[in-house]
Amino acid sequence: MADKIKISFPDGNVREYDAGISSMDIAKSISEGLARNVLSAEVNGVVWDASRPITTDATLRLLTWNDKEGKATFWHSSAHLLAEALEELYPGIKFGIGPPIDNGFYYDVDLGDNEFSSEHFEKIEKKMNELAKRGVSFDRQEISKSDAIAYFEDKGDEYKIELLQDLEDGKITFYTQGNFTDLCRGPHIPSTSSIKAIKLLSVAGAYWRGDEKRKQMTRIYGITFPKKTEMEEYLVMLEEAKKRDHRKLGKELEIFTFDDDVGPGLPLWLPNGAAIIEALEDYAKKTEEEAGYVRVKSPHIAKESMYLKSGHLPYYEDSMFPPMLIDNEKYYLKSMNCPHHHKIFAATPKSYRDLPLRLAEYGTCYRYEQSGELFGLMRVRCFTMNDAHIYCTEEQFEEEFSKVNDLYMKYFETFGIDKYLMRFSKHDPAKLGQKYINEPELWKKTEDMVRKVLIKLGVNYVEVEDEAAFYGPKIDIQIYSAIGREFTLATNQVDFAQAERFDLSYTNEKNEKERPIILHRAPLSTHERFIGFLLEHYAGHLPIWLSPKQVAILPLSDKYQEYAEKLLNYLKKYDIRGLVDNRSESVGKKIREAELKKIPVMLIIGENEEKNNSVSVRIHREGDKGSMNWESFIDFFNKLKEERK
Amino acid sequence: MADKIKISFPDGNVREYDAGISSMDIAKSISEGLARNVLSAEVNGVVWDASRPITTDATLRLLTWNDKEGKATFWHSSAHLLAEALEELYPGIKFGIGPPIDNGFYYDVDLGDNEFSSEHFEKIEKKMNELAKRGVSFDRQEISKSDAIAYFEDKGDEYKIELLQDLEDGKITFYTQGNFTDLCRGPHIPSTSSIKAIKLLSVAGAYWRGDEKRKQMTRIYGITFPKKTEMEEYLVMLEEAKKRDHRKLGKELEIFTFDDDVGPGLPLWLPNGAAIIEALEDYAKKTEEEAGYVRVKSPHIAKESMYLKSGHLPYYEDSMFPPMLIDNEKYYLKSMNCPHHHKIFAATPKSYRDLPLRLAEYGTCYRYEQSGELFGLMRVRCFTMNDAHIYCTEEQFEEEFSKVNDLYMKYFETFGIDKYLMRFSKHDPAKLGQKYINEPELWKKTEDMVRKVLIKLGVNYVEVEDEAAFYGPKIDIQIYSAIGREFTLATNQVDFAQAERFDLSYTNEKNEKERPIILHRAPLSTHERFIGFLLEHYAGHLPIWLSPKQVAILPLSDKYQEYAEKLLNYLKKYDIRGLVDNRSESVGKKIREAELKKIPVMLIIGENEEKNNSVSVRIHREGDKGSMNWESFIDFFNKLKEERK
Repeated sequence: MADKIKISFPDGNVREYDAGISSMDIAKSISEGLARNVLSAEVNGVVWDASRPITTDATLRLLTWNDKEGKATFWHSSAHLLAEALEELYPGIKFGIGPPIDNGFYYDVDLGDNEFSSEHFEKIEKKMNELAKRGVSFDRQEISKSDAIAYFEDKGDEYKIELLQDLEDGKITFYTQGNFTDLCRGPHIPSTSSIKAIKLLSVAGAYWRGDEKRKQMTRIYGITFPKKTEMEEYLVMLEEAKKRDHRKLGKELEIFTFDDDVGPGLPLWLPNGAAIIEALEDYAKKTEEEAGYVRVKSPHIAKESMYLKSGHLPYYEDSMFPPMLIDNEKYYLKSMNCPHHHKIFAATPKSYRDLPLRLAEYGTCYRYEQSGELFGLMRVRCFTMNDAHIYCTEEQFEEEFSKVNDLYMKYFETFGIDKYLMRFSKHDPAKLGQKYINEPELWKKTEDMVRKVLIKLGVNYVEVEDEAAFYGPKIDIQIYSAIGREFTLATNQVDFAQAERFDLSYTNEKNEKERPIILHRAPLSTHERFIGFLLEHYAGHLPIWLSPKQVAILPLSDKYQEYAEKLLNYLKKYDIRGLVDNRSESVGKKIREAELKKIPVMLIIGENEEKNNSVSVRIHREGDKGSMNWESFIDFFNKLKEERK
Repeated sequence: MADKIKISFPDGNVREYDAGISSMDIAKSISEGLARNVLSAEVNGVVWDASRPITTDATLRLLTWNDKEGKATFWHSSAHLLAEALEELYPGIKFGIGPPIDNGFYYDVDLGDNEFSSEHFEKIEKKMNELAKRGVSFDRQEISKSDAIAYFEDKGDEYKIELLQDLEDGKITFYTQGNFTDLCRGPHIPSTSSIKAIKLLSVAGAYWRGDEKRKQMTRIYGITFPKKTEMEEYLVMLEEAKKRDHRKLGKELEIFTFDDDVGPGLPLWLPNGAAIIEALEDYAKKTEEEAGYVRVKSPHIAKESMYLKSGHLPYYEDSMFPPMLIDNEKYYLKSMNCPHHHKIFAATPKSYRDLPLRLAEYGTCYRYEQSGELFGLMRVRCFTMNDAHIYCTEEQFEEEFSKVNDLYMKYFETFGIDKYLMRFSKHDPAKLGQKYINEPELWKKTEDMVRKVLIKLGVNYVEVEDEAAFYGPKIDIQIYSAIGREFTLATNQVDFAQAERFDLSYTNEKNEKERPIILHRAPLSTHERFIGFLLEHYAGHLPIWLSPKQVAILPLSDKYQEYAEKLLNYLKKYDIRGLVDNRSESVGKKIREAELKKIPVMLIIGENEEKNNSVSVRIHREGDKGSMNWESFIDFFNKLKEERK
C-alpha cells in the first residue's frame, strides 16, 4: 500500500492522497470539469507541471487560465509549439529563448539564410494549429549536462549550448512535445490540444542575450487562447488599444511632446497637457485637503548622505541619475520624495497631538531607465507623483490605512475604473532579519490590520507571500482600462523602518519618544502614467472637467468675431476653458475639427445668436442641442459637467 | 585767456566754461545751495572728485546724496575717515581694503596685538566725529608705482604693497585727508565736514583677499549720513528689519527650513510655507488666466545641446550645476525655463492666429551660488519662478508689453507695494554687433516702444545706458518693503535673439515665415525671494488670504473638543484654513500663542458657544469682536479677508 501524503488546499481544506499522485489526478478526484481546465499547479509555492508526481505533504493550488501563472504556462507551451512549427517549416534553424510575456509569448530564432517576414505568419499559424490538434503532451526529462550538450552539439544549436554552460549539472531538464525537444525548466500544460486559437502578432530584431555586439536574431511574437472567442475579443481590444494609444492621442490632441535637446524620457507638457495636470492637481488637492492632508514642497536634489541614510545608496544607485559634484559633495536628483518628507517631519518637534500628520506633495522625481525601456508616458525618466506620507501612531494605523483605501475607491469611482485588483504582499516569517526587518510582532499585527481593512472595505484583493518591501507590507494596485488592459498604479506601503533610519520620533502621552509608523501612498500614481492611462481609458474623450478645452466657440463668419470674444470672456468668468476658432473656414469644417480635437461642447454663433444674445449648442459625438441664452448655457454646461464626472 | 569747453547737462542744456574748471565750481556757478550738496560728479560717464579740473568738452552729472553714486562716494570717504581714526587710536596697525557697500562701508584691518571688540566702537566713533569736524579735504595725488611701494614699505604695510603689485604704473593715485594717506582710486567727497552722523555697526573676521589660507583680518562695518535725523531713521529701520528678518520669522512661523542632508541653499517648505505658496500660485494662475496665459510644464533637466543652442554654455557655466553623464550625453539642471518654453513653442506649427502665445509655468530652476553667498531665501540654489514667455509679432509687442506692466501694477497694489523703481536698461549703438545683437532698427523701435509704454502708464522709471541684455532691452524692477528696504525682483526682458537661435517661427498672413519677438517676465519673482520679501514687508502678519492658518479654534476645555472639530469641518467647507488648539492649556495661553503665531482670527468656544451654536471672535492684534453664529462668522470672515487683501 502506498504511503499517504496530506495535501492542503487554498480554502484551508486538507485531504489525504497516495504519495506520487499528480496534481492533475487530484483535480480529477475533485471534478472532471476542473481537471479539464488545469494548466499547471503551484506545489509548495513552486509552479509545476500538473502531471508531476507529488511525493510529500504539500500545499496545492491548481492553476487555470484564470490564474496569472496558468496563463504563463499556457503561453510558454505555445512558444514551444511555435518553435516546433518553425523547425518543421525551416529545418536546420537555431533557437535562442522563448518565454511567455504579459500578453502572449515570443521565440528568438536564428533563421540562417531563410527569408522571413510577417507574410509568412499565416503558413506558420496553420502549421501550429495542425500540431496543436494532435493533442500531444509535453514530456519532462531530467538530463545530465554532458548529455544535454551532446544533444545540441549533434543538432548544431550553439545558442542552446551557450545557455547550458551557465546551468548547474543535475538541475537540467528537457521538454519534448511531438518531434520537438527543448532545453527548458518548464512547466508546461498537459496537452497541446488546449491551444485552440493562435495568432502571430509581429516580428522584430533582437540581439542574442541583449548584447548589441552579438548576433541579431529574429524575434517572433504571438498569442494563443484556449477559446476562439477569447482570441476574437483580444484582437478587437488590440485594435481598439491601437486607436487609443496614448502616444498617438498625445500627439493628435497636443498633450505632450519629446524633444531631442531635452532628452528621451523627459516629457514636455504642452498647454493642453498642463491643463489636464492642473485639473487633476486641483481635484487631488481638494480631496486631500478634505481628508486632512497638508502640503509641503521640496527640492529635486539632495546630498549623498541623504540617500545613504535612506538606504537607497548604494543598492538603488543604478536607478538613480549620476551624482553632481558640488563643493566636494555628491548631489543626486531625487528618485522618490520620501526622504525629503521625513526631513520635513523632523524639522520641528512632534507630539502625539500632531499625529496623524499627512504630508502631501506633487513631487517630481527622476529615475534612470535604459533608453530601450522608455515608452511614451508609461516608462519615463522624469515623473510627477501624487505623493503623500502619513506619519501615525500604531493605534491610528488602522484608521489611516482604511482612509487611504477610501481615497482609492473614491478615485476609482471618479474615473470610472470598474475593474481593479489589490495585491497584498506579505513577509515570510522565515526571512525575518534578512529579507525583512526583524519585528515579528509588528509584521503580524500590521498584516492582520491590513487584511482586516481590505476585508471590511470589501475591496478586490489577493494575498501574495514573501513579496513585501523590506520595511513593511505593501499593496500593489492594478487597474484596468475601459478596454481591459492592465495598468500598475503606484504601490501603497506600510513602513516601520525609515522612521528609525531618519531618527523620526514624537512624544507620546507619557512624555516618551516613540517612532511613528509611516504610510506611503500615491493613489493617482504619477501624472505621466495616470494621464497615459486616462487617454486610453477614455479613448481621448476626456470628461468635461478634465478636458483641456471645454468649449469651442465657432463663429459662422468673421463678422461675429467680437461677439465670440465677448462670449469667451464671459465663459472665463465661470471658469470654463474655451477657445474661439477664428479662422476663415466654413462652420462645417470648424465643427469637424472641434470633433477631431474631442472638445466636449461647441457653440455656434451667427446673426441670430448675436441678435438674441444666445448660443447654438452642439455636443461632441451627439450633435445639436438647440439654442439657449448665455445664462442658461452656464447652467446647462455645469449640469453636463457634473453628470459626466 | 583760457580755452573754452562745452559742458552738457542731463537736461540737455549745454554751457561754456573755461577749461580746467572743476565740477564743484560749475555747481557754484549754478547755485551755492546745489554746490553744498555735491559729493562727486560723473564726467563723461566716469565718477570723479568734484574738485578735479575738467579740460575737455564733457557731459556732466553732479552727484548728491540722492544719487546711488553720490552715496557710494560719501561712504567711501567715510571708510577713509574710519581708517584715519583707527590709525590715531591704534598706531602701527595695517590696512587691507575699505570699500563702500550697499548700506555703508567697511574697512579690513590687521590690528596686530591690539585687542578689539564692538565695545571699542564708541571711542572710534568719537574720534571719527572729531576728525570729521576739522572739515579737511581729500587730496588726490598721482604717484609712481615705485614711490608708492616705497611709501608703504616705510610705513610697514605689506597688504597695500601686495595690492600695489597688481596695479599698472602710471595709473596709481593716493588720497590724503588730514594725517592719513591711502592707496585709492577715489573719488572722494569735497570735505570731511559733510559727514555729520557716524555709527559703527558690527565687526567680523574676513580672510585677506577672501582666501581662507591667508591672514584673518578684522572687518569693521559702519554707516554715516549727512544729517543726524537720517541716521536716526536708519537705525529705527535697522531695528525693525531685525525683527522682520525673514530667516527669524521663517523659523518662528514654521515657514521653511534647511537640512544638512539636503544641502545648503535648498529650502524645504514646511506646511505653512507650502500653504503660502499655494495661495500665491492660485492668485498668479487666476490673474494669468484672465490675462490670456496658458500653462505648460517642463522637466528640470536638459541635454548640453539645449544650452549650447541657447548660448548659456559655456558663458554661463559657472552659474549652472555640474553636468550628469547619461548614456554618454551631458545633462544639466535647468537654470532658467526659457529654453524649455521655446521647445514647447516649437513643438507644433504656429500661425499668426496663434499669437500672442503666452506660456506660463511656475518652474523650479537650479543655479550654483558660492556657499558663502547663500542667504536665507534671498540667495538660494533652488528657486521656483513665476515665469512666463510671451511670443508675439512686432505689431503686438506694444500692447503685450503694456499688459505685462499692468500686471506688475496690479500685483504692487495687491501687496501694498507703494514704492518701486523700474530701471530701463538700453543698448549702446556704438556696441552693436559686439555687446548687442546687430539690429539697429529693432533696438531703436523696441526701446521707443518700451519708453512710450512706461511714460503712458506713468510708472516710476529711470533710463540706464549700455546695460541692456545681449538680445534686447530689459527692465529691472526694484521694490521697497514697508520699512524702505530695497529688493530686486526678476527682470522683464525683450528678446529678439532666442527666436533665431531656436529657429522659432510663425506663418504670417502672407504665408511667410517670421520670427516672433519674445517677452520674458516674472512679476512675482521667485517664491523664495517674494515670500522672503513678504515676511519682512508684513513683519510676518500676512494678510488673511495669504495666511497659512487663517483661523485658530481655541476651546476653553477638552469638553468642547467635539464642537471644535465640527466647527473646523464647517470652516473647511468654506475654504477657510483652520486649526484646533486641543492642548489642555488655559485659553489665555492659547490666545497668547495664536498671537505669536500671527494667526489672523481666533475663535474661542466654551459652554455658551456650544449651547448657542456660536463663536467668540478675536482678531489678531485687535482683540475681542464679540459673539456670532456660524453663518454670520463666515460673512464676517469673508468681508475681513476682502478688506485686507
